Parts: sequence; structure tokens; C-alpha cells
Amino acid sequence: MISQQLFAKIEFISEIEKLKIIYRQNGVLGNERHENSAEHSWHITIMAILLADHTVYENLDILRVVKMLLIHDIVEIDAGDTFLYNETARNDAHEIEKKAAERIFGLLPEENKNEFMELWLEFEQKTSPESLYANSIDGFQPLLNHLITRKENHKLFDVSKSKVIQKKSYIKNSSPELWKMAEEIIEKSVEKGLYLNL
Amino acid sequence: MISQQLFAKIEFISEIEKLKIIYRQNGVLGNERHENSAEHSWHITIMAILLADHTVYENLDILRVVKMLLIHDIVEIDAGDTFLYNETARNDAHEIEKKAAERIFGLLPEENKNEFMELWLEFEQKTSPESLYANSIDGFQPLLNHLITRKENHKLFDVSKSKVIQKKSYIKNSSPELWKMAEEIIEKSVEKGLYLNL
Repeated sequence: MISQQLFAKIEFISEIEKLKIIYRQNGVLGNERHENSAEHSWHITIMAILLADHTVYENLDILRVVKMLLIHDIVEIDAGDTFLYNETARNDAHEIEKKAAERIFGLLPEENKNEFMELWLEFEQKTSPESLYANSIDGFQPLLNHLITRKENHKLFDVSKSKVIQKKSYIKNSSPELWKMAEEIIEKSVEKGLYLNL
Repeated sequence: MISQQLFAKIEFISEIEKLKIIYRQNGVLGNERHENSAEHSWHITIMAILLADHTVYENLDILRVVKMLLIHDIVEIDAGDTFLYNETARNDAHEIEKKAAERIFGLLPEENKNEFMELWLEFEQKTSPESLYANSIDGFQPLLNHLITRKENHKLFDVSKSKVIQKKSYIKNSSPELWKMAEEIIEKSVEKGLYLNL
């Protein structure tokens, strides 16, 4: 006998297949396509496991961080990816994303739905150490991705160095050391012509 | 100051960017491209978190399962993806993959390298409950992916239903219920013309 629980989970698991075709502004090596939110989520989850020694937060619940990062972008299936530097769109995004969370996590059995809704809201609210750390990793990854994958002088939306620093300097609160690394990466990206030197 | 540890981790994190362009026989929705091993790893990691209630193994260390699934395919950066139903290639794969593991995990600081090597070997050896469970999820996902993403009558390498059942029935040992679900999925795939009805 297959339980209703399992049927519901398989429906959710089938639904999130869609995240693999939600594309972001990030690239992949060779520039044949943009990065999608599923592979991005994979990358930051491994990063969070490896970089936990470099944050100011002690005794983090790493499994909680991992779950948060694995599911945080699933709402984009309905809401799409909103580019960080498009501020008008970012302001409208939260309500649309909340509806998406309710629909998609709502496919799951009650207990799993509640857990995932809670994790998603925690990530968005950025108050717990786990969510602050998770957000810092999510914010760091695109910096590295731009430097590694973009061709020289590929300036996306004419983003400037000072705007990047303004948007990303919160990483420093979670990890001064990771922020130092981010500053080096941003500098190299400016040299490569990826951000305006302003 | 940025520690040697952090430099080494960032080198590894940059290296595994490559997994996003290692393509498998699985598809994505719309069939514009094949599934890659990074997004596949994301998908099975969420599945493992959700399906742990449906396995015969009790008190699994889920964080260990999660880590195993996130890193198990990284060796494909050097070794490529070997199609399950290509048996000659599968037999040769292990030694090549082991060398790949040593090179790629070897980019990390000693402690992380040792942990990832151990997790990768554990996954390959299939003896611990965590690795048996992780393997069953890794084996289940392509069945669901084929049914969801492939067009009608898309027969890849003329794989037959009996061959699929032979290769996948080990899922039953970890979860009789998940295997029942797999059998339903295989049946629907045969009806859709994806596997030969032999």
C-alpha cells in the first residue's frame, strides 16, 4: 500500500522539477546558458557546510541551514527570479513569493508543509543566526560565480562596484573573513570589466 | 586576514562550478537540454529529507545522508557521468572516479578532504544504513524524471521494463513502499512508450 503521505510528497517532488528551468542572472562555465535556481541551491548548500568554521555564529544548527538553503528558492517556480539590483521588482517580490510558498509547500503533508513554510519565512526574516548565515552564503555565491563564469567586459545592467559593495556588505556581519574574500573577488571582477569602477 | 583554509575552500567551491555542465541522460521539462549532475544532486537531497519516514532504516543520521548526496557526483567533473544501463562503462568507472575524488576533494583542507573522501567511499560501498538509503533515493529519482520530462515514445538506448526493474529493485530493501511507487511509475512510463515492454 502506498500512503497518502507518500503520494503527496511525490507530487511535491515532481512539482519542484520546475526549479531546474528557472534561470537567474548568474552564468555557467562556457556561457551556453544561465545558471538555474536548482543548481544554485546545490552550490550554496555545499558552501554553507564548508564555510561554517568561518562565521561569527557559534553552534549553528547546520541541518537547519542546509534545509533552508535547499528550499529557499522554490517559490521562484511561481514568482520567478528577481534580480537583486532591480529594486522596484525586489520590493514587490515578497507577497508574490509568500503566495507561491503557500501553494507549493501546500502540496506536502501538513507536517512537512509547516516545517518548510517556517524555514522559508525564517530565511526571509533574517533574524535567527541560521538564517543570517544562510543569507550571507546566498549573497556570496553570485560574486564568485560572476568572476568565474563571465567573459571579460560582460557588464550586466551596468552594475557598479559601489552598488555591489552596498548590497553585499551585510556578509561582513556573519563573517568578516568571508567579506574580505568577497572584497578581493569584487576587485578582480572590476579588473575583468564585469562591474563599473564607480 | 584570509586564512589558507578559506583560500583552499574557495578553490574547491570554484572547481565544483563545473558540475553544472556535466550532463546526464535525464531530461528537464521542455526538453531544451539534459539534466546536469548539480541540479540532480539538489533534487535527491530534498527527496532524502522528505522520504526518510518511508524507509526501513531507523534513526538515520540525515545530515550524513544529505552531505553524501550533495557530494556523491562531484567525481563526474573528471570521470563524466556513466549511464547505468551501459554495463561495460560502469565496471570501469570506479577506479577513474576514485582518482577524481582524490584530486577534487584534495583541493580542500585536510579535515574536510578526509570527511568528503569518507562520505564518498561510504556512498560507493553501500554498507551503512545511510549509504543504502542515499543510494535508493539516487536510484529512484531518474524513474520519476523520465516519466515527467520525456516526450511520448522517447526510448533512450531501447531500455526494457525488465532491465529497469532488475537495475532498480534494490530500492525495495530500503523502502518497500517507495518501491511500490517506483513500480507504478515504471508502468506509466511503459504506457508512455519510454521503455520497451519486455
